[in-house]
Parts: sequence; structure tokens; C-alpha cells
Amino acid sequence: MDNCLFCKIIAGEIPCHKIYEDDEVLAFLDITNDPEGHTLVIPKKHSVNLMDTDSDTFAYTCEIAQEIAQHYVNIGYADGINIYINSGVDAGQEVMHLHIHILPRKQGDGINFARTEKQSDKTLAEVAETLKLN
Amino acid sequence: MDNCLFCKIIAGEIPCHKIYEDDEVLAFLDITNDPEGHTLVIPKKHSVNLMDTDSDTFAYTCEIAQEIAQHYVNIGYADGINIYINSGVDAGQEVMHLHIHILPRKQGDGINFARTEKQSDKTLAEVAETLKLN
Repeated sequence: MDNCLFCKIIAGEIPCHKIYEDDEVLAFLDITNDPEGHTLVIPKKHSVNLMDTDSDTFAYTCEIAQEIAQHYVNIGYADGINIYINSGVDAGQEVMHLHIHILPRKQGDGINFARTEKQSDKTLAEVAETLKLN
Repeated sequence: MDNCLFCKIIAGEIPCHKIYEDDEVLAFLDITNDPEGHTLVIPKKHSVNLMDTDSDTFAYTCEIAQEIAQHYVNIGYADGINIYINSGVDAGQEVMHLHIHILPRKQGDGINFARTEKQSDKTLAEVAETLKLN
């Protein structure tokens, strides 16, 4: 898709801090890094959101999100995990390519799904190095 | 599982306002009804959260959550949808049986995933009647 930010990331035209990739799915850090390790999982096949994503693609993207969540807990990076999807502008969706958010949570972090400003490239690179699955 | 609230709901020992049911999955209204139509989708096979749910069960539960989300938009009930999962006490998980939250969103509703007090049975029944898929 022309002018789709995430399609450009998939194509390598825009860099990302990769956590996982296979033939169907890409996972990388959200630029807010809020909380630290905030990760996005996206299908490589373009779709906008829950409404137009075929169910097999959605199910597989969820499976990978689960695997990443387990990985974050298993390596001691997170005490718990929030997963969420914003589908539609009226639900807060900002990039019009389906994406699953993974929030690594730590005991007492007081997080409430809020996001803040874009983080530095250096910070993102360090976190990606810690978290990448492949 | 003894003493699991959601296993008791699945067994019919505790009532719920059902939205969808098949052999593997049950969906019903969250008792907060915040926002209206707040729905939970759970696998019938007990597991605690993302850490111990087998991937096939998780993927299928996600597929049904997607189908319900599409249904809510298609019937004009929601303009957008949030889906989220709290996995682990440190991520805000309250009932220790995997559940996917579906939030029907309306334009300008100002919702931020916050939940309030338990709603009346009557209110819940009316909403379930509007939303049920089967």
C-alpha cells in the first residue's frame, strides 16, 4: 500500500527496531517506548484493522503476539503483559494498518495504557537488543 | 477448575449475559458494562492467561473476538473497537481465567479503557439482547 507507514517499514524503506520477523508477521518497538518495550505486531499483508483482516491472518498475528508476550515474561523482562488493539479512528487507531500492541508490565509501574512522546533512537535500539526473539 | 468464577459461568452455575457460545468459546457481557456492550470472550478450557494458554486455543479465541467485533460494527452498535487482554496480576488481571475484553467504541465517547461499578442486571440483559451473535 502506497503511503502506509507500516507497509514502508515492512518493505525496509523506513527503519524499525525489530523484535521478530517471519514470512507473515513483523514485530518491532513502538516509537513511544511507553512503557519500555512497548511492541507492535503487524501482519505483512496489508489490512486496515479488525474489520478487513482475514481471520487466518488475524489468528496467526495473535499467536505471534502471544509468543512474544511469553518471551518477555520468560526472560524476566515483564511481570505481566497487556495486549491491545485499537480498531478504527473512533477507537484511537492512528496508523491504518492492523497492529497489536504488547505492553510489558512491571509490578507497581502504575501504567494505564497511556503513551507519551517519541523516544530516542538509542533508547529504542537498546531495548530492542534486549527483547528480540529472532 | 474449582473456585474459578469463569469456569462456573461456563458450567452454568453462575449466570451471565451471553453474546456467543460454541463448543470451545463463550462470550458474555462484562459486569461493569463500561462502556456499554463491554464483552468478555473466554475459552472453555481453563487456562490462567497468555502464559499457559495453548496457542491453538488462544488463536481461536482471538478469531471469535474478531468476529464479535465485526458484528458490533456491522450492526451499527460501534464506530470502533478496542480489544485488550490483561495477563498477570501486575498487568491488572482480576479473574484468573484467560479473557479477551471487547470495548465497543462510539465517536467522541472519550473512553480510556477505564471501568466503573457493576451495572444492573436489567441493563446488562438489554444490552446482551441487542448484541448477541447466536
